[in-house]
Parts: sequence; C-alpha cells; structure tokens
Amino acid sequence: MIGWIVGYVDGEGCFSVSLFRNKTTKLGWQVFPEFVVTQSEKSKKSLDILQEYFNCGNIYINKRYDNHNEDIYRYCVRTRRELTEIIIPFFKENQLKTAKKNDFMIFMQIIDMMNENIHSNKKGLKKIAKLIEKMNRKKYSLFLESSETER
Amino acid sequence: MIGWIVGYVDGEGCFSVSLFRNKTTKLGWQVFPEFVVTQSEKSKKSLDILQEYFNCGNIYINKRYDNHNEDIYRYCVRTRRELTEIIIPFFKENQLKTAKKNDFMIFMQIIDMMNENIHSNKKGLKKIAKLIEKMNRKKYSLFLESSETER
Repeated sequence: MIGWIVGYVDGEGCFSVSLFRNKTTKLGWQVFPEFVVTQSEKSKKSLDILQEYFNCGNIYINKRYDNHNEDIYRYCVRTRRELTEIIIPFFKENQLKTAKKNDFMIFMQIIDMMNENIHSNKKGLKKIAKLIEKMNRKKYSLFLESSETER
Repeated sequence: MIGWIVGYVDGEGCFSVSLFRNKTTKLGWQVFPEFVVTQSEKSKKSLDILQEYFNCGNIYINKRYDNHNEDIYRYCVRTRRELTEIIIPFFKENQLKTAKKNDFMIFMQIIDMMNENIHSNKKGLKKIAKLIEKMNRKKYSLFLESSETER
C-alpha cells in the first residue's frame, strides 16, 4: 500500500503553498500550505484509500456544470498539525521519484519555518514567498510584487 | 517498487486501443493497442524506471515549441508480444485501484482477441470497436461509422 500511495501521489498529487491577502492576520497575508490529490468521480475510491490510510484530511467536490465532464474530487490535508505529524514524515520516509520531490522538499522547509513562527514577520514571509516561487506551480507572487515588500 | 509502479500508472498511465485505416491490412483497418505513461521532461527519470523495470518499450519525445511548456515524454509499449507477456501479466497480478482498471480489463480482452486473430474478420473487428467505445477515452469510432459496417 505504501508503494502505491507514493506512486499515485507522484502521478496525481500536489504539494502547494499559497500566499494570499487576509486582513485578519498580523501582516495581512496568509500562508496556506496544502497537500492535495485530485481525481475524477469515477476514481473517487482511490481518494478514500488515501484518507483512510492517513486518517486525516477531507475530500471536497468541485462541481462541474458543463455536460461532458465529471465532477472533480480533491483529497486535501490543510491543517499544519496533520501536515507536520502525518504527511511530511510519510513522504520523508517514502521518497517520491518524480520532480514532485523537489516541491515536497520546499513544502517541508516552509512548514518547518511556519512551525518556528518565521512567517509572522515580514522578513520571514518574504523568505517563504521566495521559496514558493521555486515550486513547480510558479505563480506570480502577489506578496513579492506588493507595495509591502521589495525584491 | 511494484507498488509504486501500480500507483504511478493509476495516476499517469493509459491503456488505449486505436482503430484506424491502414490499407496494407486485410480489412483496411488496423487495431493499435498501446500502454503509455506520459511525463514532463523534469520527471523523465520516472519513465526510465518503468522502462528498466519492464525491460521493454520505448521512450518518445513530443517536442513543444511554445515557450512556457516543457517537452512531453511518453513511455510506450506497443508490440503485442510485450503487452501479452510482460505488461498484462504484471497488471493482472498487481491490480490498479482507480477507474483505469476498467480500461485495463477491456485492453486485456482485446489483446486476447487479437492473439486469437479475431480482428482479422469484420465481425471480430466490430466486436473490438464496440469494446473500444467502452474505454475511458471514448472516441467516435470511425470504423463503426464507416460504410463498411452497420450498427
């Protein structure tokens, strides 16, 4: 089962960290790490296998309203405790074989920094934003481009 | 390694059968079964792992000429002998967990029929065309819609 999970996540998984505006946080920006595996309805069972194995996380549905596409299901682990105690140790022990391993390494680094509360000051947040830019799903960093920071 | 391969193929693999016109065949149609795993350049290594494990098949490159996309690599097993002797026994013994299992079951059925030479008569070919329509990548069957057959 462990091997299957690693292979399946190498195929369909995603370690992502988003950084978005949230006025309720101290700096006005929220760091949002997430482990996600996406699947269509007819293979939802494979997400149940993950949820059962890790014994954490939730399965969300993305409704599709166009005719010819199925609904998309997403298995997500979002709480920092579960990421720190369950997801990260698993993939540290059972290493990914694709380029997703690089994303995982950065993901782990960011969670470590969050656990040391580094994201609660602007310098730390900038460091995190720069790490996010090194991840596969490069997005234009709204934080790094904002008036609140400079490169 | 076996578990990883099954999980990875559940994520990125594809069992497909195409049916296209080929005037050099007896009936003018060729049945083309293929086991394919697709990956971007930065994870090509994972395709090497498959090729090494199965000790068959080839890796092809799909060049991309747009700026922001990587080249796509495809690990393909296409010879009926290798599909029959290597790929099918592997996935028969190590079962897929997603809806791809359904495609695999049909794929196996078609290869069995081909090994019994059923595709060399029109009735058999029609049977195969109908099985292909039950696979995930439903395509409009040119064969079933052609003047050479009727539903």
